[in-house]
Amino acid sequence: MFGAPQLIVKIIGSIGAVSSGLDLGKEGPLVHIGACLANLLSQGGSGRWRWLRYFNNDRDRRDLITCGASSGVCAAFRAPVGGVLFALEEVATWWRSALLWRTFFSTATVVVVLRGFIEVCRNGRCGLFGEGGLILFDVSDVTVRYQLGDLLPVTLVGVLGGVLGSLYNHLLHRVLRLYNLINEKGRMAKLALALAVCALTSVMLYVLPFAVPCTPCDPAFGDACPTMGKSGNFKRFNCPDGHYNDLASLLHATNVDATRNIFSTGTAGEFRLDSLLIFFAVYCVLGLFTFGIAVPSGLFLPIILMGSAYGRILALVLARLVRIDHGLYAVLGAAALMSGSMRMTVSLCVIFLELTNNLLLLPITMFVLLIAKTVGDAFNPSIYEIILDLKGLPFLEAKPEPWMKDLTVGELAAAKPRAVTLQVVERVSTVVEVLRFTRHNGFPVLDRPRPGVSELHGLVLRSHLVAVIRKRWFLPERRRTEEWEARERFTSAELADKAGTVDDLQLSLEEMEMYVDLHPFTNTTPYTVVETMSVAKAVVLFRTVALRHMLIMPKYQGPEISSIVGILTRQDLRAHNILGAFPHLANKRKAH
Amino acid sequence: MFGAPQLIVKIIGSIGAVSSGLDLGKEGPLVHIGACLANLLSQGGSGRWRWLRYFNNDRDRRDLITCGASSGVCAAFRAPVGGVLFALEEVATWWRSALLWRTFFSTATVVVVLRGFIEVCRNGRCGLFGEGGLILFDVSDVTVRYQLGDLLPVTLVGVLGGVLGSLYNHLLHRVLRLYNLINEKGRMAKLALALAVCALTSVMLYVLPFAVPCTPCDPAFGDACPTMGKSGNFKRFNCPDGHYNDLASLLHATNVDATRNIFSTGTAGEFRLDSLLIFFAVYCVLGLFTFGIAVPSGLFLPIILMGSAYGRILALVLARLVRIDHGLYAVLGAAALMSGSMRMTVSLCVIFLELTNNLLLLPITMFVLLIAKTVGDAFNPSIYEIILDLKGLPFLEAKPEPWMKDLTVGELAAAKPRAVTLQVVERVSTVVEVLRFTRHNGFPVLDRPRPGVSELHGLVLRSHLVAVIRKRWFLPERRRTEEWEARERFTSAELADKAGTVDDLQLSLEEMEMYVDLHPFTNTTPYTVVETMSVAKAVVLFRTVALRHMLIMPKYQGPEISSIVGILTRQDLRAHNILGAFPHLANKRKAH
Repeated sequence: MFGAPQLIVKIIGSIGAVSSGLDLGKEGPLVHIGACLANLLSQGGSGRWRWLRYFNNDRDRRDLITCGASSGVCAAFRAPVGGVLFALEEVATWWRSALLWRTFFSTATVVVVLRGFIEVCRNGRCGLFGEGGLILFDVSDVTVRYQLGDLLPVTLVGVLGGVLGSLYNHLLHRVLRLYNLINEKGRMAKLALALAVCALTSVMLYVLPFAVPCTPCDPAFGDACPTMGKSGNFKRFNCPDGHYNDLASLLHATNVDATRNIFSTGTAGEFRLDSLLIFFAVYCVLGLFTFGIAVPSGLFLPIILMGSAYGRILALVLARLVRIDHGLYAVLGAAALMSGSMRMTVSLCVIFLELTNNLLLLPITMFVLLIAKTVGDAFNPSIYEIILDLKGLPFLEAKPEPWMKDLTVGELAAAKPRAVTLQVVERVSTVVEVLRFTRHNGFPVLDRPRPGVSELHGLVLRSHLVAVIRKRWFLPERRRTEEWEARERFTSAELADKAGTVDDLQLSLEEMEMYVDLHPFTNTTPYTVVETMSVAKAVVLFRTVALRHMLIMPKYQGPEISSIVGILTRQDLRAHNILGAFPHLANKRKAH
Repeated sequence: MFGAPQLIVKIIGSIGAVSSGLDLGKEGPLVHIGACLANLLSQGGSGRWRWLRYFNNDRDRRDLITCGASSGVCAAFRAPVGGVLFALEEVATWWRSALLWRTFFSTATVVVVLRGFIEVCRNGRCGLFGEGGLILFDVSDVTVRYQLGDLLPVTLVGVLGGVLGSLYNHLLHRVLRLYNLINEKGRMAKLALALAVCALTSVMLYVLPFAVPCTPCDPAFGDACPTMGKSGNFKRFNCPDGHYNDLASLLHATNVDATRNIFSTGTAGEFRLDSLLIFFAVYCVLGLFTFGIAVPSGLFLPIILMGSAYGRILALVLARLVRIDHGLYAVLGAAALMSGSMRMTVSLCVIFLELTNNLLLLPITMFVLLIAKTVGDAFNPSIYEIILDLKGLPFLEAKPEPWMKDLTVGELAAAKPRAVTLQVVERVSTVVEVLRFTRHNGFPVLDRPRPGVSELHGLVLRSHLVAVIRKRWFLPERRRTEEWEARERFTSAELADKAGTVDDLQLSLEEMEMYVDLHPFTNTTPYTVVETMSVAKAVVLFRTVALRHMLIMPKYQGPEISSIVGILTRQDLRAHNILGAFPHLANKRKAH
């Protein structure tokens, strides 16, 4: 998922997609690119890059990927703190304090490098790059003044934003399910779908500006109106001299420029209501149909475009109540729709602060975000949860469902096939059989040190079993090896390799009759829970400690009782999979 | 620690301390006040406040206290996002995603209320309150431009800031230990110490401005110089007309005004180097000797004052290299010293952004913060860790020490007195004895359902045992009760009460011979770990899942083996306490 081919495809695809003017954001691919780079760094290196092998472990890989994701958001929005918080709120399933300043460090580096490039590229030396400096949509020129009376329209922005956001989630869910069906038909279908969306986009963006009348330039704007041959607020398009087409100003621009135009302050009369309505409708349609085609895409910018139009429309409709600048209403509308769809709070708030550079807007933005999130949560889960669910990724929900309290991990483990266990000194044939006929990644190891005394010795990983078998480190008799024997024979790199299999291995009959000592490879302190623990509690433990396997111990200890009940993985604890095995809980779910 | 008396004392004390001009910040008391309020809310209510009882549980109390702390920082610096991040980075020992938006909600409320008060108090109707609006130290009027050449002096700010910050930590540690000795001598000693520091402050602040010569007003400043009868940059004090005393401008002002003066931009020539040096020295002395006296105080403002003077001094010294405004150097100096002493990154960065409202300064601030933190970490732990350690609070370190890997929880439990265990149906006399002669808060409950089968039934809390004994819910014979019997008899409020004891209870001999069924009160799924787990791993588990007790299970299960090895609490897992029991690990610690 995070390899070198993906990296190259994403970079080229993302450049193509953004420059073709499709309605998509670049933060999605940038996050993915950051994660790919981080993953490549953590694969371990050779030659002069040998120091990279220090990152070749699960924890550092996870940390690096989080850093990469936050750098991606930082690069997309030039929002370093927002990037850190995005990683914190949306990406990382667990968190430790060291990670906070690591992500902070990576976004700081990104922003310093970005700052350097912008400095080099000043005066348009690199085309559109660097335009606007570090702040993408600067609205700091208005001093925001608001009184109690402004609370009503602002609340309305939040509530409607929440409703629209959840409606968007609902409709996008439908569209993505339809797209899944189309994409399954093969590559040609995928290509046709992408081309159709591209054609639709081009036609809509070009044809629709003809539908609105031309607006005469306000002399107050002077030379800025109409804009010819450069980006600006007043595109002439099909209009006579001294006039501009406001819809063309919005549609015939890069997505970033369009947002900048619609956020621009002191321009209350610039956009006509019908143009804004058309713009909103266009971007609703494009926003729903563009995400999900076979093109690298992000969700931020489409929702910002929709939301900003929605904010301006609301400002025009409520003109008599509105005393804050219409450009700021566009900002608030965008924030409300984002929050209504993505349900993030702190990170959105900081991203908007860093995008717009208006600190005085902060209290009112927080207010709108919270309202929109609360309203949206009443209808459906966040867009990211919907997408993760559609993709079937084993992403553990942050909060256990209420009905999980009524199920114990013992019951859950009993519903699975019996756990495959190994003895500490096991026959080669058994190990090979287990590796060939199961796909589990970890196996409980049992021991019986003295008659009548049983022991759960620990957990051995599939990759370690594969390494031992491939190296043919077999013992002729059933004995326990010394620690140094294994240490001498296996390097940590060999044991860290996760890709090996035994399918192609030919073992003689004699070898199959020999023994393997699993002592040196067993993690003797896996995380264990007692079978009577509720699934809800186990899910919290699983997620906060970032486990991969959880061993279930019996409640009672006695000579005839096995010392392990079962083993649970991330997949087993997903709500969707539990409901598959225990359908009667689904009814309870509705009752809650 | 967080009761109503503390609340009142803190409010009155904080008002007195801040208005007396002592060198202390108000964010410390405000955080404490927020936490007190939160704690009072979570005590459960009566009458019409009965709905408050829903918060009367450990988890919600902890969440509420975190919210209160973040609100305190938010109120002190008018920095809502900074408050959330402060709580995240410094206060909360564990974190869940729901907490993020809860703290966000509370700081949003604080900032909306604050905004309302500032609006009401405009034009000085409430004295100094509301001056400066929502942004305390606004420096957004300068457009920051920096090139590669600025990197060198800025790096120097960071490195020196880290060194000074860790030096400050070291000296403050010494002073606090001295103060502890003085404060132990009784109330009069405490009072005398506080009065001495007050006198020292007054004398220094009043006398020292006489030591510097008067500066003639630059005509460019016009009427603003000299300032008479109001706060401003140019205090006349002892100077003739048309002159000002720059040191008096800094010292004869509230702490906030002094910071504002020193942060003020476009005033490179205003402060003389000798005045700044005296100012820096004064606030170093006061900053070291004020914190720790019996007055509610915070550390932010003293360090900001010191750091801003340090930044300006560095800018004057390096005048030929410096091309950024001196006011911004003051901001960077303050950030560097803060980070060098407190070792926070993201939250400091956001707090500074919200204090100064200059987004273009952000990349350079991040850079300085990271350098200062890295340099400071090379010398000693953060100031908060030093203070927590001095106070002996059972605060679990975020990261386990390296030597903790060499010790198992079994060894640690074995070094403690044997765990006091109870049977599920226990004699009243045993329970009373255990309650009277131990101070433990939780007891493992064992059961033996069938001969030869042993069971760790769970964990019972001291408070529940007390509730049962005080209610005299005794059974004449050794039997197991039905669930409804206990449910009928005990309300959740009775069980949640933590203050009860059995010391004053008179029980007859017959009652002592009766039995208590602990089934209904036992938590049957406590968190358990196997005795071979390393202490390092246990510490991580303890902290991430926010445990209070951890039960240690035996590695081997057999008829003659007890089903529990011991019980560990937060205190047992503190590095300091472990080293007390295992002194040889201290040598290893140094070797690392």
